[in-house]
Amino acid sequence: MLQGYVQKDTNRDLCDLAQKTMIPMTILDKATFDSRFKGNTQGIVLEIEEYKTISLEEEIAKLKGVKNPLLLMLDGIEDPHNFGAIIRSAEAGGAAGIIIPKNRSVGITGTVAKVSSGAIEHIDIIEVVNLNQSIEKLKRAGFWIVGTDLQAQKRYDEIVADTSICLIIGNEGKGISRLVKENADYCVKIPMVGKTNSLNASVSAGILIFEILRKKAAL
Amino acid sequence: MLQGYVQKDTNRDLCDLAQKTMIPMTILDKATFDSRFKGNTQGIVLEIEEYKTISLEEEIAKLKGVKNPLLLMLDGIEDPHNFGAIIRSAEAGGAAGIIIPKNRSVGITGTVAKVSSGAIEHIDIIEVVNLNQSIEKLKRAGFWIVGTDLQAQKRYDEIVADTSICLIIGNEGKGISRLVKENADYCVKIPMVGKTNSLNASVSAGILIFEILRKKAAL
Repeated sequence: MLQGYVQKDTNRDLCDLAQKTMIPMTILDKATFDSRFKGNTQGIVLEIEEYKTISLEEEIAKLKGVKNPLLLMLDGIEDPHNFGAIIRSAEAGGAAGIIIPKNRSVGITGTVAKVSSGAIEHIDIIEVVNLNQSIEKLKRAGFWIVGTDLQAQKRYDEIVADTSICLIIGNEGKGISRLVKENADYCVKIPMVGKTNSLNASVSAGILIFEILRKKAAL
Repeated sequence: MLQGYVQKDTNRDLCDLAQKTMIPMTILDKATFDSRFKGNTQGIVLEIEEYKTISLEEEIAKLKGVKNPLLLMLDGIEDPHNFGAIIRSAEAGGAAGIIIPKNRSVGITGTVAKVSSGAIEHIDIIEVVNLNQSIEKLKRAGFWIVGTDLQAQKRYDEIVADTSICLIIGNEGKGISRLVKENADYCVKIPMVGKTNSLNASVSAGILIFEILRKKAAL
């Protein structure tokens, strides 16, 4: 938190609270406040530092010496609610970071941070230019690349967990893109028995992450 | 589908398509259409039958002779996105029905149906007046009542799957209510290793449903 702004005569409680936490607060009259901040502010605005993503090289360096690290790679997730829920599950399930493509993916928005329930502060978000080049780098660093595919031969509970894993989560409608799937070491499926035969992307990510955690706990 | 209405000179394609499916379509001029249907209709409205829930007694009767049936009970889920995603996971994971409290729960809205991706058409929704009385009825019908609780001793992969199960999913913030938890035969937890230590309600429901399915497949 760098700086707060409060509209005169509103939010005295919040302003008092903010001052207790040593956040510098500036009181602005209504006209100045409104001209400066658009949208539904409820009379208080806090400036925060921009969320910092890291590079894949930095992440790989950080994970040297970590036993059986787990990374996620999101290939085409667009819905911020799904992205936020995946961050939450990944952090709770012990993943070190989440790789997202720089240009085409969902951004790190307020909704994403909110749905993640704070988990975004405790996990690395790794922005990369090209998913397939990143897969090559990960393979050279000893990671097994595990894709997800409804047509896969292996079941998700056959994932080999005692190694470095990068788990790829595809777009809900289209799944993982063809080239990414070809570059994966192997793919797994979640067997289903109903008529709809598909899951919400954040639900399937959660099932896979916690199956890997369950296997690691049993090692 | 009972009856369709289309605004004159709009949606000719949709109207043609509807007629091919034998839905009776009435063409209305703009003024009549607008006075009759509010909201964003895009010039076409289809009347459908009201979604039919069933009673617990009917559900228990339907499940006579079904091997190891799974029911879900939602205790306090309020978010329609969570409800919809839980319906989708439950149907894909082979659950027969979802028990919801009549008065206090989330309703079966358009959002719920949409997020369920059609799964709501293939699963029973059972509305009950009182969750605890329903638990007693389920116990008498041979169901094991399995709650979820962060403080539980048992892990979720210790659920005994070769029996009739009613799995209770609690409110995300507050969890399962005290009395419901006391009436459960046992509770399980999903062990987590992160700092946030909680999951989206639909993600934890998915993890539990698919762990039960995984165990059944291994039987």
